[in-house]
Amino acid sequence: MAYGCLASMKTRPGFREEVVSILLSAVGGLREAGCDIYVVGRSEEDDTTIWVTEVWKTREHHDASLELPGAKEAIGRAMPMLTGEFTKQEVSVAGGLGL
Amino acid sequence: MAYGCLASMKTRPGFREEVVSILLSAVGGLREAGCDIYVVGRSEEDDTTIWVTEVWKTREHHDASLELPGAKEAIGRAMPMLTGEFTKQEVSVAGGLGL
Repeated sequence: MAYGCLASMKTRPGFREEVVSILLSAVGGLREAGCDIYVVGRSEEDDTTIWVTEVWKTREHHDASLELPGAKEAIGRAMPMLTGEFTKQEVSVAGGLGL
Repeated sequence: MAYGCLASMKTRPGFREEVVSILLSAVGGLREAGCDIYVVGRSEEDDTTIWVTEVWKTREHHDASLELPGAKEAIGRAMPMLTGEFTKQEVSVAGGLGL
């Protein structure tokens, strides 16, 4: 069963584009790691919120990806620019388009 | 600029799978209407919440799609099974995988 994760994070003022760039730099290798969809979006409600939507073949693929050196390095670079406010919704993917 | 929409809805108890089926029945024709990604997921937090993530070429493509006969018909069929509790996050898509 495909696993989906809809997450949001808030950046410190003025740092959203830099964090978006870091998140997009992590795209290489995601497909090989079992990711089908990864979408980085800027909230239209404010200037500091980023939404990341991911679909993985399984939850285990997603969890394992966080241990990849590239992911850890990206998280380390982004963390100082984040406020620490996160949300996360986990879903079991039923289907759709683009999968 | 691609337009993204992350929406949630709550169904009346016992009706989630039926609403999921209706949402998935709307997949045909979406790509032609300008949709790149459409993911229907069941929340893992409860038994009644559905999350729908969509990415469209533009917001105008998304808005126009709601006027399609198939979309109106699907909304009409699902509505009696919903509680009326909705959330919606709109994003400007920066990039990712699967687009």
